[in-house]
Amino acid sequence: MSEAYRRAGVDLRAKEALLDHLKAIGRSASRPEVLAGIGGFGGLFRLQGYKDPVLVAGADGVGTKLMLAQEVGDLSGVGQDVLAMVANDVLCQGAEMLFFLDYIGVGRLVPAEVAAVVAGVGRACASIGCALLGGETAELPDLFPTGGLDLVGFGVGAVERDQALGHDAARPGDVLVGLPSDGVHSNGFSLVRQIVREGGLDLGSSYDLGAPLGEVLLRPTHLYGPEVLPALRTGGVHGVSHITGGGIPGNVPRMLPRGTMARLDRTAWQVPPEIELLLRTADLGRAEASEVFNMGLGLVLAVAPQAVQDVMDRIGAAGGRPRVVGEVAEGEGVAL
Amino acid sequence: MSEAYRRAGVDLRAKEALLDHLKAIGRSASRPEVLAGIGGFGGLFRLQGYKDPVLVAGADGVGTKLMLAQEVGDLSGVGQDVLAMVANDVLCQGAEMLFFLDYIGVGRLVPAEVAAVVAGVGRACASIGCALLGGETAELPDLFPTGGLDLVGFGVGAVERDQALGHDAARPGDVLVGLPSDGVHSNGFSLVRQIVREGGLDLGSSYDLGAPLGEVLLRPTHLYGPEVLPALRTGGVHGVSHITGGGIPGNVPRMLPRGTMARLDRTAWQVPPEIELLLRTADLGRAEASEVFNMGLGLVLAVAPQAVQDVMDRIGAAGGRPRVVGEVAEGEGVAL
Repeated sequence: MSEAYRRAGVDLRAKEALLDHLKAIGRSASRPEVLAGIGGFGGLFRLQGYKDPVLVAGADGVGTKLMLAQEVGDLSGVGQDVLAMVANDVLCQGAEMLFFLDYIGVGRLVPAEVAAVVAGVGRACASIGCALLGGETAELPDLFPTGGLDLVGFGVGAVERDQALGHDAARPGDVLVGLPSDGVHSNGFSLVRQIVREGGLDLGSSYDLGAPLGEVLLRPTHLYGPEVLPALRTGGVHGVSHITGGGIPGNVPRMLPRGTMARLDRTAWQVPPEIELLLRTADLGRAEASEVFNMGLGLVLAVAPQAVQDVMDRIGAAGGRPRVVGEVAEGEGVAL
Repeated sequence: MSEAYRRAGVDLRAKEALLDHLKAIGRSASRPEVLAGIGGFGGLFRLQGYKDPVLVAGADGVGTKLMLAQEVGDLSGVGQDVLAMVANDVLCQGAEMLFFLDYIGVGRLVPAEVAAVVAGVGRACASIGCALLGGETAELPDLFPTGGLDLVGFGVGAVERDQALGHDAARPGDVLVGLPSDGVHSNGFSLVRQIVREGGLDLGSSYDLGAPLGEVLLRPTHLYGPEVLPALRTGGVHGVSHITGGGIPGNVPRMLPRGTMARLDRTAWQVPPEIELLLRTADLGRAEASEVFNMGLGLVLAVAPQAVQDVMDRIGAAGGRPRVVGEVAEGEGVAL
């Protein structure tokens, strides 16, 4: 153990003690294909069962939702947030998640805090059958303020090449099927926190939301894989869009070919009451808010008309709540 | 574009302009297997040419070396650092790198700064035939101080299952072959910066190092894959260890089975002069320093005695500079 290094603000011993705990979490979120988990130089995953596999990889972070979680004192849900940010993107290409790795950067290593975050990652991975294959925790006292914490994730999924989804299959006449978000999810929290602060909102008050505002805002990003993957196997889904930063206008076009547009019927779904509260408090217009928040839709699918019933039935049977929210038309962009 | 969001400190327009530039960098570091690069929901990589593929994944960051790079005003090398931190770990399992993704967290998005970092990642990826498949840049004004920047990378490699390296093949009598580091690499920079600061070292002075100290300390982490992979195919390499945080004592045992130890001859290689300078300045003992710095060895291989000449010849033919630095013996830990 280096005393000089400890004086420089980095405690390797605390990190080693934590590592044993993290290994146990990794074992709780494993798969038969995992050959070696957390603690080796790299995590090993034997790829089996694919004829012509395409690997789909994504990286994303939770952003300043973490600061709200620290303020409320509940880090249990951010692990699902970081997994979902990546896993829902991987799903947009038609792939099932295989494995996930997390990165936590902190100003000062608080083992209980890191353990709480990683335990949440592990629970979320286990819930969708994804292996938590490894991760890294970096104590960077000069980069982050004391108490500062960043959480980033990286995931890899796989799909048969002839079933991979891109942005060239959707066509005019396709039906847009939406799946509800569980609230704000993991985007727009710099704005959320500003509205809470400047609008004088109290995170402990319920505002007719059924639970304290802080708790409601922290609800984890929905993991859509388990309810959507069975429907993808019908071949009737032409595109999938995960509604993240940039909202519906910024993300729905990413699953559409040039020359097509998305026409959405905004009466077809509910805006979550906590988003309504934020808009009212900040006197923020719906158009402007739509470019930051998901406005109640977490995932949008472009579906061939003749497959809509089958797709919606399969999503429903898997526990999802699909509804028709619009259609693909000729044009560009999004009419909302 | 959301004015409210911009007031909250996040400029989506600057991010979109940057994205076009990053896409071009991604195209410059591609492979035939890449089906869709930066900008989709996920990056797609068609896995071909393996009979029984094992995927090897790693995640790591550059840490506070970034702060030194910002202080010196040269971010061109940190991209290679973040790639090498992951790629050398993946190499320890016997795998070639397939693709890489980066994550950059900043307090304030400076497009030229992010572009310089990602260009370095792209160059480094191209130099080892690895695809830069995607990435994420997050502007988190409340988490990072203004000017603060974190750089993290995630990579995936592949190896035939019967060629994967673990920590159970090395045995007493194996020869330890070392490869020189290109200086401090990417670990221990909280301590490096403390020594520079408290010891009154001048980053612009050369101290008989042949170049200004700041430039020498920023030399990127060596990418060992190209020179080591051909030697792994001999079957004579029993283990590979990447010397990172924790130094030789913390990393060499990770490639060894229980009941074996590493006996190193510290006269067999040179400690880089910049590490000697740091030790002298801080009056830091060699034993203590060995637990933080690589002390001049960036990679250590455990090699079957009868294969040593062949392995060293192959590494040499590929441009590496291997030397015998010790042996595996019965016992525990490291004698240095």
